[in-house]
Amino acid sequence: MSLSMYQASAPVFTQGLKGLLKALAKADAYVAQRKIDPAALLQARLYPDMFPFQRQVQITTDFARGGVARLAGVEPPSYDDVETSFAELSARVEAALAFLATFEASQFEGAADRDITLTRRGETSVVKGQPYLLLQAMPNFYFHLTTAYAILRHNGVELGKKDYLATS
Amino acid sequence: MSLSMYQASAPVFTQGLKGLLKALAKADAYVAQRKIDPAALLQARLYPDMFPFQRQVQITTDFARGGVARLAGVEPPSYDDVETSFAELSARVEAALAFLATFEASQFEGAADRDITLTRRGETSVVKGQPYLLLQAMPNFYFHLTTAYAILRHNGVELGKKDYLATS
Repeated sequence: MSLSMYQASAPVFTQGLKGLLKALAKADAYVAQRKIDPAALLQARLYPDMFPFQRQVQITTDFARGGVARLAGVEPPSYDDVETSFAELSARVEAALAFLATFEASQFEGAADRDITLTRRGETSVVKGQPYLLLQAMPNFYFHLTTAYAILRHNGVELGKKDYLATS
Repeated sequence: MSLSMYQASAPVFTQGLKGLLKALAKADAYVAQRKIDPAALLQARLYPDMFPFQRQVQITTDFARGGVARLAGVEPPSYDDVETSFAELSARVEAALAFLATFEASQFEGAADRDITLTRRGETSVVKGQPYLLLQAMPNFYFHLTTAYAILRHNGVELGKKDYLATS
């Protein structure tokens, strides 16, 4: 038995986003309990030229929504990056989860061979669905998801692998 | 067209490990140029109860080698965790890449439905190959790969997404 492009995308992004929701809830509780300005975490970066936590969360949702939409041949939804609290970021993740849940496996038939057109900094490139998912969307999704997690850990929020894998 | 379990694993781990090799080379050059004790990076952690850089690299290779071996029905190779330099860590990554290159797609037939037996802290669990790859091995691989990258970035090593995606 092989794997469908649906199975290799939507449920995988879903698990990661559920883990991100757990991390956001713990971060929110952490600042509330210690009376820390939430911006101390929301704006935290691992290095000055890296994105802050809130942007890492936004980008993580973008790769999940955009990845599944493109593979299904649907226009990827565009979101304004306006979230400035843990609650608003959680709502964005919830919205991405709800979006992923609207897809059915049948929409991914032929997705491995589908031409995916990407525009980045004004340059357009075309890549097949399979390498797009496995070698671009998925590693980028995990990059920003893990970096968001790493920023919270670095700032003392108690998270574990069970949060990351959404198994707790 | 669907995806084979081979395509969803070996080439994906390979890309990530090639990116890790680039990061290791840049870290090595960084400490040499600035006459920094390599241990300052090798032992760096994002938080006291997180693994240091060198352990993140070791675990990243473990998930790649172990993931592909288990899916192919081969005994996962066991390595001693003895590396104490960027050169030794790079050799470990190179060895993992060479190991991945020994596999052929035909060894992954039926891998999605194969029972994978995992032993962790003395407890044994059995999971099918598909969720093992997509919801355990792959997210864990990216977790440690990205955390290794984040530790280097946090310490000033100049890395970019092209290194991470091994496209530079």
